[in-house]
Amino acid sequence: MIDVRHEQATTHAADAWSRLNPGKIGVAVVTAGPGVTDSVTGVANAWRANSPILVIGGQGPFGNLGRGSLQEMDHVSLMRPITKWAGACYDTERIPEYIELAVRHAVTGIPGPAFLEIPMDILGNDVKDENVRYPEIRTTPPLISPQRDEVTKALDVLENAKRPMMMAGTSVKWSNAQSSMQSFLDKTKIPTYANGMGRGTLPRDSELLFNRTRRDAIKNCDVIILAGCVLDFRMRFGQSIPADAKIIQLEMDNLLVGQNRNTDVALVGNLACSFDTLSQVIDEDDRNIDFSAYAAELRAQEDKLAEALQGAQASDAVPIQLPRFCQEVADFVAKDDEMIVIGDGGDVVASSAKVVPIPKKGMWMDPGPLGTLGVGAPFALAAQLTHPDRKVLIIYGDGAFGLNGMEFDTAVRFKLPIVGIIGNDAAWGQMMRPQGAIFGDYIGVDLNHTRYDQMVEALGGHGELVEKPEDIQPALERAFASGKPALVNVILETDRNYKGGGYV
Amino acid sequence: MIDVRHEQATTHAADAWSRLNPGKIGVAVVTAGPGVTDSVTGVANAWRANSPILVIGGQGPFGNLGRGSLQEMDHVSLMRPITKWAGACYDTERIPEYIELAVRHAVTGIPGPAFLEIPMDILGNDVKDENVRYPEIRTTPPLISPQRDEVTKALDVLENAKRPMMMAGTSVKWSNAQSSMQSFLDKTKIPTYANGMGRGTLPRDSELLFNRTRRDAIKNCDVIILAGCVLDFRMRFGQSIPADAKIIQLEMDNLLVGQNRNTDVALVGNLACSFDTLSQVIDEDDRNIDFSAYAAELRAQEDKLAEALQGAQASDAVPIQLPRFCQEVADFVAKDDEMIVIGDGGDVVASSAKVVPIPKKGMWMDPGPLGTLGVGAPFALAAQLTHPDRKVLIIYGDGAFGLNGMEFDTAVRFKLPIVGIIGNDAAWGQMMRPQGAIFGDYIGVDLNHTRYDQMVEALGGHGELVEKPEDIQPALERAFASGKPALVNVILETDRNYKGGGYV
Amino acid sequence: MIDVRHEQATTHAADAWSRLNPGKIGVAVVTAGPGVTDSVTGVANAWRANSPILVIGGQGPFGNLGRGSLQEMDHVSLMRPITKWAGACYDTERIPEYIELAVRHAVTGIPGPAFLEIPMDILGNDVKDENVRYPEIRTTPPLISPQRDEVTKALDVLENAKRPMMMAGTSVKWSNAQSSMQSFLDKTKIPTYANGMGRGTLPRDSELLFNRTRRDAIKNCDVIILAGCVLDFRMRFGQSIPADAKIIQLEMDNLLVGQNRNTDVALVGNLACSFDTLSQVIDEDDRNIDFSAYAAELRAQEDKLAEALQGAQASDAVPIQLPRFCQEVADFVAKDDEMIVIGDGGDVVASSAKVVPIPKKGMWMDPGPLGTLGVGAPFALAAQLTHPDRKVLIIYGDGAFGLNGMEFDTAVRFKLPIVGIIGNDAAWGQMMRPQGAIFGDYIGVDLNHTRYDQMVEALGGHGELVEKPEDIQPALERAFASGKPALVNVILETDRNYKGGGYV
Amino acid sequence: MIDVRHEQATTHAADAWSRLNPGKIGVAVVTAGPGVTDSVTGVANAWRANSPILVIGGQGPFGNLGRGSLQEMDHVSLMRPITKWAGACYDTERIPEYIELAVRHAVTGIPGPAFLEIPMDILGNDVKDENVRYPEIRTTPPLISPQRDEVTKALDVLENAKRPMMMAGTSVKWSNAQSSMQSFLDKTKIPTYANGMGRGTLPRDSELLFNRTRRDAIKNCDVIILAGCVLDFRMRFGQSIPADAKIIQLEMDNLLVGQNRNTDVALVGNLACSFDTLSQVIDEDDRNIDFSAYAAELRAQEDKLAEALQGAQASDAVPIQLPRFCQEVADFVAKDDEMIVIGDGGDVVASSAKVVPIPKKGMWMDPGPLGTLGVGAPFALAAQLTHPDRKVLIIYGDGAFGLNGMEFDTAVRFKLPIVGIIGNDAAWGQMMRPQGAIFGDYIGVDLNHTRYDQMVEALGGHGELVEKPEDIQPALERAFASGKPALVNVILETDRNYKGGGYV
Repeated sequence: MIDVRHEQATTHAADAWSRLNPGKIGVAVVTAGPGVTDSVTGVANAWRANSPILVIGGQGPFGNLGRGSLQEMDHVSLMRPITKWAGACYDTERIPEYIELAVRHAVTGIPGPAFLEIPMDILGNDVKDENVRYPEIRTTPPLISPQRDEVTKALDVLENAKRPMMMAGTSVKWSNAQSSMQSFLDKTKIPTYANGMGRGTLPRDSELLFNRTRRDAIKNCDVIILAGCVLDFRMRFGQSIPADAKIIQLEMDNLLVGQNRNTDVALVGNLACSFDTLSQVIDEDDRNIDFSAYAAELRAQEDKLAEALQGAQASDAVPIQLPRFCQEVADFVAKDDEMIVIGDGGDVVASSAKVVPIPKKGMWMDPGPLGTLGVGAPFALAAQLTHPDRKVLIIYGDGAFGLNGMEFDTAVRFKLPIVGIIGNDAAWGQMMRPQGAIFGDYIGVDLNHTRYDQMVEALGGHGELVEKPEDIQPALERAFASGKPALVNVILETDRNYKGGGYV
Repeated sequence: MIDVRHEQATTHAADAWSRLNPGKIGVAVVTAGPGVTDSVTGVANAWRANSPILVIGGQGPFGNLGRGSLQEMDHVSLMRPITKWAGACYDTERIPEYIELAVRHAVTGIPGPAFLEIPMDILGNDVKDENVRYPEIRTTPPLISPQRDEVTKALDVLENAKRPMMMAGTSVKWSNAQSSMQSFLDKTKIPTYANGMGRGTLPRDSELLFNRTRRDAIKNCDVIILAGCVLDFRMRFGQSIPADAKIIQLEMDNLLVGQNRNTDVALVGNLACSFDTLSQVIDEDDRNIDFSAYAAELRAQEDKLAEALQGAQASDAVPIQLPRFCQEVADFVAKDDEMIVIGDGGDVVASSAKVVPIPKKGMWMDPGPLGTLGVGAPFALAAQLTHPDRKVLIIYGDGAFGLNGMEFDTAVRFKLPIVGIIGNDAAWGQMMRPQGAIFGDYIGVDLNHTRYDQMVEALGGHGELVEKPEDIQPALERAFASGKPALVNVILETDRNYKGGGYV
Repeated sequence: MIDVRHEQATTHAADAWSRLNPGKIGVAVVTAGPGVTDSVTGVANAWRANSPILVIGGQGPFGNLGRGSLQEMDHVSLMRPITKWAGACYDTERIPEYIELAVRHAVTGIPGPAFLEIPMDILGNDVKDENVRYPEIRTTPPLISPQRDEVTKALDVLENAKRPMMMAGTSVKWSNAQSSMQSFLDKTKIPTYANGMGRGTLPRDSELLFNRTRRDAIKNCDVIILAGCVLDFRMRFGQSIPADAKIIQLEMDNLLVGQNRNTDVALVGNLACSFDTLSQVIDEDDRNIDFSAYAAELRAQEDKLAEALQGAQASDAVPIQLPRFCQEVADFVAKDDEMIVIGDGGDVVASSAKVVPIPKKGMWMDPGPLGTLGVGAPFALAAQLTHPDRKVLIIYGDGAFGLNGMEFDTAVRFKLPIVGIIGNDAAWGQMMRPQGAIFGDYIGVDLNHTRYDQMVEALGGHGELVEKPEDIQPALERAFASGKPALVNVILETDRNYKGGGYV
Repeated sequence: MIDVRHEQATTHAADAWSRLNPGKIGVAVVTAGPGVTDSVTGVANAWRANSPILVIGGQGPFGNLGRGSLQEMDHVSLMRPITKWAGACYDTERIPEYIELAVRHAVTGIPGPAFLEIPMDILGNDVKDENVRYPEIRTTPPLISPQRDEVTKALDVLENAKRPMMMAGTSVKWSNAQSSMQSFLDKTKIPTYANGMGRGTLPRDSELLFNRTRRDAIKNCDVIILAGCVLDFRMRFGQSIPADAKIIQLEMDNLLVGQNRNTDVALVGNLACSFDTLSQVIDEDDRNIDFSAYAAELRAQEDKLAEALQGAQASDAVPIQLPRFCQEVADFVAKDDEMIVIGDGGDVVASSAKVVPIPKKGMWMDPGPLGTLGVGAPFALAAQLTHPDRKVLIIYGDGAFGLNGMEFDTAVRFKLPIVGIIGNDAAWGQMMRPQGAIFGDYIGVDLNHTRYDQMVEALGGHGELVEKPEDIQPALERAFASGKPALVNVILETDRNYKGGGYV
């Protein structure tokens, strides 16, 4: 049991726990009233990120329902719009039954949160064990596969493609489909891009993983495979895919099939099963599908773009500029193949995400489409608990640190040596830049160059203040070497016109 | 516009603003998605505290509703169970109309929060001024009075009373009924106790305000006036009132009349109007209602109990014991008649509340029946903005400080010299004591004797560490003298068996 | 206990019962699942009509909640959007407590429905009487009055008026304010119009009650008193009131004050209290407010318009034309001062409502702003039970009869001699006319000239078929004389271009 | 477009349409306010029956949202608890997009209703065709299959069985799995029983379909295959299955897997796919699974029970007794292999269902687990429209006929010669018998021996009154021969102690 400083951290940590422990489910237990309401943001984030978590909340005594107990409120109605299931258990003997029910909903189809309220007297009653049914809790739902007919149809479309591409998205992760996807790509050499939790499902040095050419590849594609990638705002609602391109969609549930654009072929099921069946049918039908030539073409473009970018990050200016900050962090991350990197911020994270490599055996985590600030420390707690021997690094904007930075106290208490690095430009970047663009004026966008490093020291951790670019990496080294929760506070230039941000 | 570090602070501050500025309404504006979800706790707290606030939340573009925009979610359904009104405005011209609608619901009857979602494109559209209706925003609803017949009935009951008492609760405050209540008491001399936001509506040296004799007075009463005091958990759901005692209830809305117990006479309306009408009918009917004898009797008991308590707080032990901490704070508060005192904690606040006097012209604020931890700094921000010249003091438990202590950064940025004092016993007191009592064992109850004072210094404020009882008051003096946001961190003994807590 | 043929009738009848029995509350008890869902329309109608009713619904056993019992479903969530309170009772001892809670919400402020679910095992358990609290059920909330200051302000506005008018709406009825309103009008001679349930609150021969001049009076007014009349679609959202006219609003609850237009003076409270206080202050202040001259002016116009209308209804054509039908019904109603007349239909009722007088001591009932078809027989059942000695007449469109005409069976079983008259034009009039106007073509608008009279005979009642205008009244006479539930089926011309309809 | 007499019929008919037309979806379009509320029961019934329907409801103008338009109310919140998706479209160009979204939700996983609100102005706006995206509407979701590992596991369990059985339930139907199931049974000879919409998926003369031995078979089974059969109240929540029996569950969605009992093997996917894969693996693995011996054993018992029952139905008494009524109807149905038989009632239908055979190529329809009365005529309308050349017979209780019997008018208008037969015992049977058993007394249980036959004649159909048992079948013959909608009204004895009822 990890007790934290604000219940928001419980659900964020549970979310991360589920992401980090495939087939398991993160659980948060919170008190009634403000305990439940404090957990709402983490639930909502898990909801949009498709992360299966179980939240158990208290309630005033069942015997006094409706009478105005301390912290009594209608938790279930509150949670319903942001959960796959929300309910209350009013019978002590049935608690295990309700937990199974909640978990079943959380992990079925597109995963998401479940909420179970248990009033305090129900929680405390004595019951006879023989009256209790203990159902098996299945955190992994039975695997399902698409039908072979649809798979054949998909391959027919693919065989006729000239410039196909694949987007690997969140459901690749929840399907544990990495190796099945890799095998499929080994056969077909389809150029692939990743978004959402699809990032990291292909190793960063995969010859088929591309990044900077995405816009062009989409613009030019004649077939696109959406492998667990939803056409939401991150894909411009599908509007940038050519109108006559064919769409092959692999999803865990039909609910997301055809969202915002028709799909030409839909393979519904666990994505590992879908990729396996695709590979199997290629073999059985002896199909010849090989896009290595097109992949090579894209590789050339990709290299050219990467080259063009080099140097842009190189400024030695003091105060440090954001691109240089990102480059230093990227270089540091590149040294460790097992690191877990967490992004918690707006501009700073968006900019970092473009250059920071995803560690081969490690992981990148960010909030996902809810864009929640404050996930950093809670995610890191879960990561360090899951992987005590790995480095866990949080890349922070200074605004973001303010939300749950206090959880460094929890890290101190549980001896979890997480490390954060703040790109501290003393501003709310994602407010500042639009305000400038629209109004030419600013209100409520300024922060201080606060000594967050000293704050973490006050909480019992290790702090570093960095003002020169060449000091960033040494400070990070010292932070990890300290063996304590640590924060590297990097003072950046406040650039009111910086254009490099945008959503991850 | 005050920009804070976590949106939770916006709604807590709005809640406090409404409490501090009678007839006005606190407004919080938050971004879509996590902005709204972060504000939920403050909304829920205002809901149970009956505090009228308006929360305006963003949303992805109206034009893309349902397509999966960044931070898109169903805010309105989320807010509905904890607001008096929640809706969305999809027409730029109608924004003022919706604001009026939201405010109208917030301030009508028993006040509470309202939530209005405005998608970002609706917020940004240009419209012609002549197409917009600008309704008058009435933050104060029209006054209403009980009928004279009911008032007469109430006085008949009162005339026959022998041991009457009055509970002054939250609706006295929302009715601005202080002086009307005082006039009524001047005529009738009914012994009076306060709870909820009723505390502070009578000056602490009023001859008719009692405290320590409450349990006995209730047990012995034959008539009880519930002046805006609900029979919820704070009144043991009315079960301690004798079965044959008559109940006279003054409430702002019939919805709360008869909650958990029948009332014999119900005066519904603004409580100022109700008290005025009572006084007026006493005069007109020339009634002789005078309970000064009974009040004197209770005063004698009250004095005896106060005496018995003295000395209990006096221990000079180091580490400091909680009763001594409370006594020192009480003595400090007693020196300033205009101070605003805010309680943010569990045991520490419950214990303090028993001895800390409510400043005559000042105010006591705590979360109310939701028992929310973390209101401290946000409430203090609102208080200091409302009263720049007054001392604003937060009494913190160490657990509670962790929730929104980060808002000391906001205090620093806006130069609001709020002062907090932490009773730091390195434990979650309200978890620890029940665990010990029920299980004889402990899990997840320990915190560190964290240097919160240094944390506040890191944020740019003033910090004090106190380890000896006699240093408490001098440290508070220095804190206020510093002119900066300041925190006095008082190291307390961790007492696993302390019994003094309980709800305020 | 009246058992009906479709649960929809239960809630419509409860709605009418509340309207017919001031200070009482109609109760409907329905089985779980389809019993509750069948009652939804009646609940929704009562919701928009502001009618206080209590609906008690079943549920599968509490012990099997969530397991899929027969007819198990989430009734409470379903009912929440159309009730003032909806909840479930899971404790047999607390059933009376929950009933009180439900009723309290139903009758407080603007009245409306409440819903209480009681699972079948909870309903059937044995409990000891001494463990049950039996709260007093107050179906009439305490009376509340506006403050005198506001009343004075209202009279100031009125004193300066030249062409004032009053709209008497639904809250006049729920306030039982008829005689208080009459006294106020006797003093002030303000020309008055009625809508919603305000119709019938002034006797039809009152010198101050106007009807046909409404549009002009509104257009010309400089002060309008909205006495429980909401500015919804029936008042064109207030847009036809001149922009510079002053608005004085009398309402039972501030929630409706300022809806769609600012009000200049708002008197919140029971309308009887408000009118009484107005009258009292006129006397006390010795104010001279007398608009008899303006009333006389309007009376002249009104008479002229009435005259112009005469003859239009007089056609002797066969098939009977709708205006003639309405005139015959009007003449029949005019003969009985105690009749209860119920409108259930679209065009037929809208047209009838313009000429049928409201019986002096009787009543007019229609669904209200939800415009629900099918209220006829259920309303009539409640009316006949309340007033066994009075004539109860339902004016039906033929479309409307189809919805709950089956309840004539209930009337037969309970020997309730209600009488219906159908204007049978073999068409869905309110579909037909807009279709013609918009598309010049028709689909799904035709019914048959069905023998509804024979259907009622089949159910055990009395039937009349009428094809000539002069036979209408004699048929009605025979219907009432039969002593049985009866239906007069009047065959009308199907007029695709009739323009006389519109909402009541 | 079929316009009916009460909107309830629209959703019931849409429900039946979906059941009758595999792969299509029934659509109901209703007006705002009472149109939507009247449709609620049909939506709720489809919700519990897992029937995919689309309901489109109106709304007051978008431009006046919240202002109180005629029939304005919050339809979406009302529909949410009983639909798989409920939303509103506020943009004319996006109407097709929202329809696709609604249908997608309705047909995905376990099917169910979807609700789409479109305000009247949005519905009427002109838009340019080129601005509208017309998505493909997929009423059949992509097929999904279980993984082969799970299939193998299921066969392992089965190979070790001694007394296996199968329950074929609703998802067999929605999966169109009849022939796949038959093939599987041909291989394995597993004795099979049906419930819910599983009834009729095996022809009634299948050697593997059993009925009367169900209780014993369950009691004795060591393996039970739940083929789309949920362990709800119809299966006593799984409590009658021996604790050590193995459960193999085939379901369309994991949400129902493990409901109320653990399953040992779960095959999730379309049931046709699951049965096909089972059969395929049996062949590939060359497994020997043959339970014909056990099936023969059960057949012997089944025959014995059927024999015992004979004669019980044979009473020639007048008034006709319910068992004889059922037998006559059964004999009549047995003559026609294509008939569609609909059950609408309580006791009468429960008793009939035990003896009436399901026509080989026809169909049996009843409401399903919501137990809704009144589905008869609406279901029949949909059936006759789908199959103009087949006989459509409704078996009615007299209570049930009262709910939507009026729709015989619709049958008359659209020349749909549906036939109903009422077992008219002049009582609410399912109220009467429990009342007698529990209280020994009766209230509100009596109806009349109403002449429903004459009512249908009045509506333009054909009527038959039957008082002697031997006249039942000839009357049915005449009813169908009439070529008109017809009703056979059979007067039954009112038997207060009849024990034969219960849920279907």
